[in-house]
Amino acid sequence: MESVLEIAKKAKAAAHKLASYSAGQKNAALSLLAKLALENKARILEANAADVDAARGKISGAMLERLSLSEKKIASMAEGVEQVAALPDPVGEIMESVERPNGLRIDKVRVPIGVIGIIYESRPNVTIDCAALCLKSGNAAILRGGSECFNTNKVLAALAREALEKSGLDPDCVQMIPTTDRAAFGELLKLDKFVDCIIPRGGEKLIRFVVENSSIPVIKHYKGVCTVYVDKSADFEMAREIVLNAKCQRPSVCNAAENLIVHADVAEKFLPALARSLAEKGVEIRASERAAAVLSNGGVKFLPASEEDFYTEYVDLIISADIVDDVDAAVAFVNKYGSGHSDAIVASDEAAARKFLDGADSSSVYWNASTRFTDGFEFGFGAEIGISTDKLHARGPMGLRELCSYKYKIYGNGQLRG
Amino acid sequence: MESVLEIAKKAKAAAHKLASYSAGQKNAALSLLAKLALENKARILEANAADVDAARGKISGAMLERLSLSEKKIASMAEGVEQVAALPDPVGEIMESVERPNGLRIDKVRVPIGVIGIIYESRPNVTIDCAALCLKSGNAAILRGGSECFNTNKVLAALAREALEKSGLDPDCVQMIPTTDRAAFGELLKLDKFVDCIIPRGGEKLIRFVVENSSIPVIKHYKGVCTVYVDKSADFEMAREIVLNAKCQRPSVCNAAENLIVHADVAEKFLPALARSLAEKGVEIRASERAAAVLSNGGVKFLPASEEDFYTEYVDLIISADIVDDVDAAVAFVNKYGSGHSDAIVASDEAAARKFLDGADSSSVYWNASTRFTDGFEFGFGAEIGISTDKLHARGPMGLRELCSYKYKIYGNGQLRG
Repeated sequence: MESVLEIAKKAKAAAHKLASYSAGQKNAALSLLAKLALENKARILEANAADVDAARGKISGAMLERLSLSEKKIASMAEGVEQVAALPDPVGEIMESVERPNGLRIDKVRVPIGVIGIIYESRPNVTIDCAALCLKSGNAAILRGGSECFNTNKVLAALAREALEKSGLDPDCVQMIPTTDRAAFGELLKLDKFVDCIIPRGGEKLIRFVVENSSIPVIKHYKGVCTVYVDKSADFEMAREIVLNAKCQRPSVCNAAENLIVHADVAEKFLPALARSLAEKGVEIRASERAAAVLSNGGVKFLPASEEDFYTEYVDLIISADIVDDVDAAVAFVNKYGSGHSDAIVASDEAAARKFLDGADSSSVYWNASTRFTDGFEFGFGAEIGISTDKLHARGPMGLRELCSYKYKIYGNGQLRG
Repeated sequence: MESVLEIAKKAKAAAHKLASYSAGQKNAALSLLAKLALENKARILEANAADVDAARGKISGAMLERLSLSEKKIASMAEGVEQVAALPDPVGEIMESVERPNGLRIDKVRVPIGVIGIIYESRPNVTIDCAALCLKSGNAAILRGGSECFNTNKVLAALAREALEKSGLDPDCVQMIPTTDRAAFGELLKLDKFVDCIIPRGGEKLIRFVVENSSIPVIKHYKGVCTVYVDKSADFEMAREIVLNAKCQRPSVCNAAENLIVHADVAEKFLPALARSLAEKGVEIRASERAAAVLSNGGVKFLPASEEDFYTEYVDLIISADIVDDVDAAVAFVNKYGSGHSDAIVASDEAAARKFLDGADSSSVYWNASTRFTDGFEFGFGAEIGISTDKLHARGPMGLRELCSYKYKIYGNGQLRG
């Protein structure tokens, strides 16, 4: 079995070749990968059945569901790869160009990052998604999926390598750590000489482990604790719809709202009615003392919220509610309890909205729209490898461009420094 | 004495205020800082003399020189601060704006990173430089200088805080770790909840320590092992001048050349003559076996180079020399031995130059110019906090814009996700 070090060295060498592959070469390999996934669905499903059987009873029903593939899921995986192939190639774009007084022309050019380690859990489609996004953006990928998905991932990674090889490209552009051994994982996180970036995708515990043990730069997403703030100037029907959409349209995702805060001046008028709408959708309300007083008067069912609740990503039909005195307090609330992901203000007062847009220290701040739009597809990136709650490199949705670095190409005619 | 945790929490709170200070407010504080530095030069020199006295005999002469301030150095520090004040404010710039089919307008806006920890050694002017650059870019700074410079740094940081306070801004925008205790340093590197970025400036050992112990994202610069490649199509006089400039103009800096490689077809003709020019400037040549054979024939003095020499940042009048068969071999050489900093090709053949510009995996790749231009001032950034050899966030010279992150401000009129 290959060592992690050997894999990383091969990835670095492959990355140097991959950086110069044309869009046509990369797209041909991607189209072939989509085709191979469909042609080999029996083989994929067989490997997946073995993983699912072994995992049954050991992981939750929701995790088992994420682990399980179907013909439909494989078809959608293949379609995703074709979509990535159809996107414009981010590599080589001249981002800026200046001519200096000494005649030097300095072009800032988008280039791949190099070697990216992807650490993930459960969902086998991540294997194909990430392989495709890394390939398109010119990055060699080292994949390290969860042990519960090992057999499925092995087949999928082999198909990606087959597609590369048959397209005349270096198969080492996509490699998988060939063991579920924890030591190999830890070793990977220290290979900063060969691996340029680690992207962990999974629960907070996994991400924390990566952050604490990696000497390689990490782009991460801890959690999505998103807030909708209803200002006193809000159109209440719009606010009601935005809150319902942000909370209920898909409560299991990171851009769903977990906190609702309402301006004190309109709380009596608005909060009980909104709470009834939420209750009708099956949402449990956890209220601060101030919110509780208003809701009690309004005769609405709720539970008391603990301080901890406001920090919590429920990923469920639960929402914490509080009342704030003004937009400054709303901003302070978001910056205290939020996770820097996505927050929204509903307001018709532009000054209040601008204060919130400026002050909320989050990747994506909305004025009169649902937090649910924080997503690479909704932002028009055409793809997404994840959403960063970091502030370095990439913040918010990460598409192909966010999987790139840049370099300076400098054109002279003999310039010397004086 | 305040704990590091308290300092970090105060920095986070200050950063949220600082993000909204106007350019005028920040510039006023910067101008006052420049003024205070000049007015307090006696106090600064007194503290510095204490540091220099204590360090004498314990650190090298070069380090002692870097540690020592003078009236002239203080004047130049103050001038640097005025220059930063005069630069355009990077914060608030709309980098991109799109309107989505659903009517959402998405603005990508430049914002400060937040809280930046600066770790540095010896040079006290870094205290003022970094405080000024962080302030201008809207970032709260936590400064941790070397113990040998503690007294000087304390006075300088106090002046920065005085300038902030007297300008009506939060003095906690600039804080200094009030101890040289190593444990406090280690603690700072783990406060990822409050500190958004660590920038270490110093020797490779310090930087390695930070990378291995920080759970906060780090932007770093390990070393500058820069190469000049002389192609067979080079104008030899231009090549000679570029090599001499890259090696000799200031050998102690990171963008000076450490390696020279010459195309085999022209080595006999060019290398001995170039080596004589280098020798005349006092440069010691360390030659590979291939280069040695050519130099021996040419009757030029040299030492044999070890494999390790080609990886070495000499920061001195020494250069390693090798011969390569073509531009592909030159690229492979740079990607093997270089540090991803700055590399140059001298060539008149455009195809060769493009291969090198594309293939050399470095922050700054030059065609017919000296590597010495990799510098925030030379690139037109107007300032520089360092040069990154990383590929995430910032690569190459880091000016004010590279000290910023971005956020998305999204303008809607009630959009919901379907």
